[in-house]
Amino acid sequence: MRIALIGGTGDIGQGLSLRFAHDTDHEVLIGSRDPEKARDAVETYEEELSERGVEASVKGFANEMAADRADVVVLSVPPYHVADTVESIEGRLDSETILVTPAVGMQGDEDGLHYHPPGTGSVTELVAERAPDEVPVVGAFHNLAADALSNLDNDLELDTLLVADDDDAKETVRNLANEIEGLRALDVGPLANSAEVESVTPLVINIAKYNEDLHDVGVTFH
Amino acid sequence: MRIALIGGTGDIGQGLSLRFAHDTDHEVLIGSRDPEKARDAVETYEEELSERGVEASVKGFANEMAADRADVVVLSVPPYHVADTVESIEGRLDSETILVTPAVGMQGDEDGLHYHPPGTGSVTELVAERAPDEVPVVGAFHNLAADALSNLDNDLELDTLLVADDDDAKETVRNLANEIEGLRALDVGPLANSAEVESVTPLVINIAKYNEDLHDVGVTFH
Repeated sequence: MRIALIGGTGDIGQGLSLRFAHDTDHEVLIGSRDPEKARDAVETYEEELSERGVEASVKGFANEMAADRADVVVLSVPPYHVADTVESIEGRLDSETILVTPAVGMQGDEDGLHYHPPGTGSVTELVAERAPDEVPVVGAFHNLAADALSNLDNDLELDTLLVADDDDAKETVRNLANEIEGLRALDVGPLANSAEVESVTPLVINIAKYNEDLHDVGVTFH
Repeated sequence: MRIALIGGTGDIGQGLSLRFAHDTDHEVLIGSRDPEKARDAVETYEEELSERGVEASVKGFANEMAADRADVVVLSVPPYHVADTVESIEGRLDSETILVTPAVGMQGDEDGLHYHPPGTGSVTELVAERAPDEVPVVGAFHNLAADALSNLDNDLELDTLLVADDDDAKETVRNLANEIEGLRALDVGPLANSAEVESVTPLVINIAKYNEDLHDVGVTFH
């Protein structure tokens, strides 16, 4: 499969790119608003991978081109760019493209981070509202610490939580996520259940803030 | 210490009572609106404990009496009874009594459970708002499956998350929680961070609903 990381030069985009390229045989496409920036990121990622003896297929494109070529499109952009980004690529999506959203709306103050969803109830549901009706949307990878992903020396031992209304699309993303070593995907039902999934992101950041011995906090369910 | 479980005949009250009585040397007081019901529960709990060779001190009282005698008062009542229950016992609380709240507001539909906090932002903050100003409030034990607690054969291996504005009270509850075998208490900062903590409860119930191999789902952070 071809996996496009839209905004793949950012921190979560980097982490997911490296893990997909390192652990799977899928083709990884890095998207950026500036294709030059995407190609620079690809160079860095390939260097990192080749140091570990992995010759992976990673290519850089403008976001639209990356989306056009991909089977799975991951919106690895900040929450306030999600709506614009969907608008900019929607002509390149169709019923055969799975749109994956890991973004979470948060607001910080001196106490910590607080879950701050848009009016749709969650960023995941905002993506579903804005994407063309025929495009299946899957919420995934919300609660993964970017630093933990990006450092390939890290054993993950993490769960990621999936929400989607389209069961086939969810199954595809579930298999993809499970191909990343140390990552386990759990089903949390339809998109309507995404707010509680997204809330885990500010929570794990707060846990890292208040517990000295915990950094890049991940979560497992059992 | 004396720990009162207000509403201690309910499922989370039963679970916490058994664990405190089994794993610690503290005195456990079961509170109920009906003292007779509290004493019946005590009989059941003592039987369960004595089968395991534990002669614990568990006593049953009306809620007000239990609160009056306790150092730590756990409001193990459903979320819609929290405000009334605080009102009914507030004359028995003072600055030396720590009020602990594990309740979470949720609403269910065919998709699953959804986090549904009161206007204060969380049930934990509702308790703090309704309790007398001098009484320290700690949010704790929100995300523990009652069935997992109540079955003493279960090894817990669980984290519980603490929020409080009073650091001494939080430390006391942290130590108490850590005395339960297999339970680890993590600090999540002040009461303002409680909504994300409470959101974990509907999330773990949804995870149990959609993943056949997971029941009484617990969570660990690392």
